Amino acid sequence: MGAESGSVRIGVIGGGQLARMMVPPAIHLGLRISVLAETEGSSAARAADAVGDYRDPDTVYAFADTVDVVTFDHEHVPNEILLELERRGVAVHPRPEALQFAQDKILMRQKLEELGVPVPSWAAVSDEGELQAFLDAHGGRAVVKTARGGYDGKGVRVISDAGEARDWFATLAEDGRGGQLLAEELVDFTRELSQLVARRPSGDARTWPVVETIQRDGVCAEVLAPAPVADPATLARAAEIGETVAEGVGVTGVLAVEMFETRDGRVLVNELAMRPHNSGHFSIEGSVTSQFEQHLRAVADLPLGDTAMTASAAVMVNVLGGPAEGPMPVRYAAALAAHPRAKFHSYDKQPRPGRKVGHVTVTGEDLDTVRAEALAAARAFD
Amino acid sequence: MGAESGSVRIGVIGGGQLARMMVPPAIHLGLRISVLAETEGSSAARAADAVGDYRDPDTVYAFADTVDVVTFDHEHVPNEILLELERRGVAVHPRPEALQFAQDKILMRQKLEELGVPVPSWAAVSDEGELQAFLDAHGGRAVVKTARGGYDGKGVRVISDAGEARDWFATLAEDGRGGQLLAEELVDFTRELSQLVARRPSGDARTWPVVETIQRDGVCAEVLAPAPVADPATLARAAEIGETVAEGVGVTGVLAVEMFETRDGRVLVNELAMRPHNSGHFSIEGSVTSQFEQHLRAVADLPLGDTAMTASAAVMVNVLGGPAEGPMPVRYAAALAAHPRAKFHSYDKQPRPGRKVGHVTVTGEDLDTVRAEALAAARAFD
Repeated sequence: MGAESGSVRIGVIGGGQLARMMVPPAIHLGLRISVLAETEGSSAARAADAVGDYRDPDTVYAFADTVDVVTFDHEHVPNEILLELERRGVAVHPRPEALQFAQDKILMRQKLEELGVPVPSWAAVSDEGELQAFLDAHGGRAVVKTARGGYDGKGVRVISDAGEARDWFATLAEDGRGGQLLAEELVDFTRELSQLVARRPSGDARTWPVVETIQRDGVCAEVLAPAPVADPATLARAAEIGETVAEGVGVTGVLAVEMFETRDGRVLVNELAMRPHNSGHFSIEGSVTSQFEQHLRAVADLPLGDTAMTASAAVMVNVLGGPAEGPMPVRYAAALAAHPRAKFHSYDKQPRPGRKVGHVTVTGEDLDTVRAEALAAARAFD
Repeated sequence: MGAESGSVRIGVIGGGQLARMMVPPAIHLGLRISVLAETEGSSAARAADAVGDYRDPDTVYAFADTVDVVTFDHEHVPNEILLELERRGVAVHPRPEALQFAQDKILMRQKLEELGVPVPSWAAVSDEGELQAFLDAHGGRAVVKTARGGYDGKGVRVISDAGEARDWFATLAEDGRGGQLLAEELVDFTRELSQLVARRPSGDARTWPVVETIQRDGVCAEVLAPAPVADPATLARAAEIGETVAEGVGVTGVLAVEMFETRDGRVLVNELAMRPHNSGHFSIEGSVTSQFEQHLRAVADLPLGDTAMTASAAVMVNVLGGPAEGPMPVRYAAALAAHPRAKFHSYDKQPRPGRKVGHVTVTGEDLDTVRAEALAAARAFD
């Protein structure tokens, strides 16, 4: 709690909005935060003490020398670099042996099966023949995903013919590392859920209420917290899955487990993210302890905070793309004026169509009212 | 809402905890914030783009050149410098003609009387003879205050003989500017209240619920929000006084009006502060829009946010002084572990006995429960 008294110095690799939103709780908790940003214009650039390429070992090692703990805005730092950091005695959270399951979807599926966690039917496929066999066995349609590097709907295709993944197989062949694609059954889901969990190195963990996420065009559009209850048993199962995964993969920091709720009442894990996640942005206002504060507490090995809701309902709506017309500040003022209860979060990013440039959260007692207000406030930027 | 789109650049003069706590909402709103800090080790140093003396005109002019709006962490910037900034076309909020009433207690008392706002019986006294006359007319005891530079109980004495202010008269005489001291009746108050108001340059204003402040040794120790209702008419009068003063002095940004509630049911104004104030720290978690966010909105001339409470009650307790024994981080972890619902705010300051080094806020439905939790969490640092 002070410079003189050994405040923990946290280094965040990646300068996007997740790093940006870690800065406010770091200020309040009295933790020192530094960011290794990709470019001078990054979302978290104001907290950046270093600008450089996270794929360059020496850049990362030099940055790590200035902090006590290294954590992440994204999962793209090569595992070899992180393992070397650990060999050099740097605390890395999440640890590379956990992070690999968020970096490689095939490893993730294998691990989840090993943990007995329900997942969609899947196979790792090495060529078009194997993919076509999977398609034939699953009614002629399937989802195919690149194992590494996908994000926000990129690297995901719904296909009905193996030839539709030919370019990806070609890229893998060029890569020469014998990579595979992940083929999955096309799940007949009624909605998507997300379970956030934070876990300390000691294993102590806390969950937030399960939320419902609403995607549009493969990108998270809205989050309803807590998820409106359909079957309480389903929500309890989602929470249990989140805890099992957090423990099973040994994550430290925040883990997001994205799940499908199927028409026949099952809950299947779709994706994992080992960092604060879009489905947890509601928690800045909606929870006693936000995912960003909790992530910092967890990676600094400080006791975790309470995750209760601060109101009956919180709805987060992403603001996408740039202004269609007129200067942004004018629209910003109009949005603030029309929605005094809405909490606006700008990522200070160059607007491009479809890019997340901010979000809006509204909290209150009635979900429908709160949701209508949040949607209207976000729409002020369309 | 973005670098490219003309984000307002706000410059804060003064690097204390108030500037520090403006940084989180600036990040969320997408406003650029810079701080002119006194020293490298200031509380808000992590946001500081400049370090220098706010009494040096050229330092302030150079800082102002880098921002769109100048605002303050404290009221000590000489008025001549601020008037010159305005002559140079810089937006200064609060404006120097408003700020003078927070800089000089005699000007403040004159203005409040002119506005018809109830104040304790007072006089500006030039020497011991005038002070003794005031004492004699007020039962032989009074409060004497330096007109300028007092803060947190400094520059305030309760006296029963004019000789007790001899050193202050001597200092004023050396100063050669013909200054006076402020003599005031010793108010028989039952409690202290504070009304926060935020006002835009256009005059649009919002108030928060009136709070009760509890002082110990002349320093704010606790804030109960909203003030437990004794007589609703009293609270309504306090709110009305706040609005009258904000409008009457033409403040822009946040104004705190500290008041006495007297045994005979009157509400008298004690002090004014034209900046976010200790009595408003509860609003970070306790209000839809915190005083820090609202101050930024007001000085950037953006629409003001809703000031409703987020829970029935919020209690803030200051953390004073340094650790009596043992390293702070150890105590910090223990405090977080014991109080998962408490929100801890560290100012990253060198602890010294009696110095405010942080605060704790708890929100909830029952005031007594919330207060007990906040006191216990703050006491973990004693």
